[in-house]
Amino acid sequence: MNAPPPTAAVIVIGNEILSGRTKDANLPYLAQKLAAVGVRVGEARVVPDVEAMIVEAVNECRARHAFVFTTGGIGPTHDDITARSIAVAFGRPFRRNRAAERRLLGYYDPDQVNEARLSMADMPEGADLIDNPVSVAPGFRVENVHVLPGVPTILQAMVDLLVPTLAGGTPIASRALTGYAPEGELAAMLAEVQARWPAVDIGSYPFFRQGRFGTTLVARGHDRAEVECVHAELRDALQELGIEAAEFDAAGQDFG
Amino acid sequence: MNAPPPTAAVIVIGNEILSGRTKDANLPYLAQKLAAVGVRVGEARVVPDVEAMIVEAVNECRARHAFVFTTGGIGPTHDDITARSIAVAFGRPFRRNRAAERRLLGYYDPDQVNEARLSMADMPEGADLIDNPVSVAPGFRVENVHVLPGVPTILQAMVDLLVPTLAGGTPIASRALTGYAPEGELAAMLAEVQARWPAVDIGSYPFFRQGRFGTTLVARGHDRAEVECVHAELRDALQELGIEAAEFDAAGQDFG
Repeated sequence: MNAPPPTAAVIVIGNEILSGRTKDANLPYLAQKLAAVGVRVGEARVVPDVEAMIVEAVNECRARHAFVFTTGGIGPTHDDITARSIAVAFGRPFRRNRAAERRLLGYYDPDQVNEARLSMADMPEGADLIDNPVSVAPGFRVENVHVLPGVPTILQAMVDLLVPTLAGGTPIASRALTGYAPEGELAAMLAEVQARWPAVDIGSYPFFRQGRFGTTLVARGHDRAEVECVHAELRDALQELGIEAAEFDAAGQDFG
Repeated sequence: MNAPPPTAAVIVIGNEILSGRTKDANLPYLAQKLAAVGVRVGEARVVPDVEAMIVEAVNECRARHAFVFTTGGIGPTHDDITARSIAVAFGRPFRRNRAAERRLLGYYDPDQVNEARLSMADMPEGADLIDNPVSVAPGFRVENVHVLPGVPTILQAMVDLLVPTLAGGTPIASRALTGYAPEGELAAMLAEVQARWPAVDIGSYPFFRQGRFGTTLVARGHDRAEVECVHAELRDALQELGIEAAEFDAAGQDFG
């Protein structure tokens, strides 16, 4: 068909994710919103609050993907080193951004303003601001790298404004189906269907719950008509195998 | 003090994590269990079911970290390519492992045995098996790389057996405290305490819930006495600032 669809990398920054204290919720949110504008997440990384690790991840990912999104590490405290690390990654000066500073000064009462809060306006030179409709402190973009906060409620509001403005591709379509049989009984059939539809990605996700084995089959691709064909073929194939099928049961989604 | 504590990398393999369909639960589980034996997770990556990406991630991570754990992609279906990719990463032949095959043949009824299921015994030559107390199909280890399944209930059972056998370091201690103030009011104090205790990692995690701003302060380190000192200093510092404090409120943990 056309040019390959654009991909993105997500870089989750924060010791609290690597320690297991906090479960990341930002990768799934970004991935689903990006899919809706035709951008597939091609890889993700979780790095600690360490400048050299952030710089390396950003520079590798921005060379490989059309879009990079970082989450986390842009607050006011000592462990928030993402903005400075992005400046290092791009070899740009790290300075107070006057437009960002004005937003912060307009948001806080004068007696709430302190140097820690204003430091959230320190950014790589030439960064474009990304609006924050929740707590004002903006994210920013340098070339193809979009720098976002880690707090999920704030990230989600910012992503909802940002992602529709990106130049993506054809939205990614997906259909899911649950077959009540262990994955090992479906494997030969799935390989056969996948071989005939190379442009559709067929995923197979086994689960065991309420005493029953099952497998959720997900067809994903940029061509909605092909995805629908594969979905229908899988449904028919389950029937031929004598396996009970159901349209996707959302309760299965934690059993990836 | 002594040698630097060992670190681990976690490589989450699976298109379903990158698409946002499934939220990863394995990184936090592994991270918490590893901390208990003194191993810190130094980085994590999420890669698609693509051999070249798996090989690259495994080879980079195994050179940098004492331990590598992969999760996902070792089932019986066409999209399960992790075991073969590990063989490529190590330049080893990819063969049927007879000990693993015997376990599978002992588990399934004869009429359930098929080639797809037996393919779960195909592994890099010389791999050591990792026991699976839930569904028998074993994981495996090659040098410092531990290959585990993606289904969380199975992974957890395997990790519970595996991790206590690893040669880790001093367990990582952590204490958490919630201060009911926005992060920007605590930043100067936190920077001051952090500067005096370089071996303790102080994390600061803001949240907003039930109409209140708060920040959870987490002290982590290998020296429990130092962690306790930092925790006590933070509690005293909140009191001096006139900020209400509480021992860690678990409801805050999604607000990382």
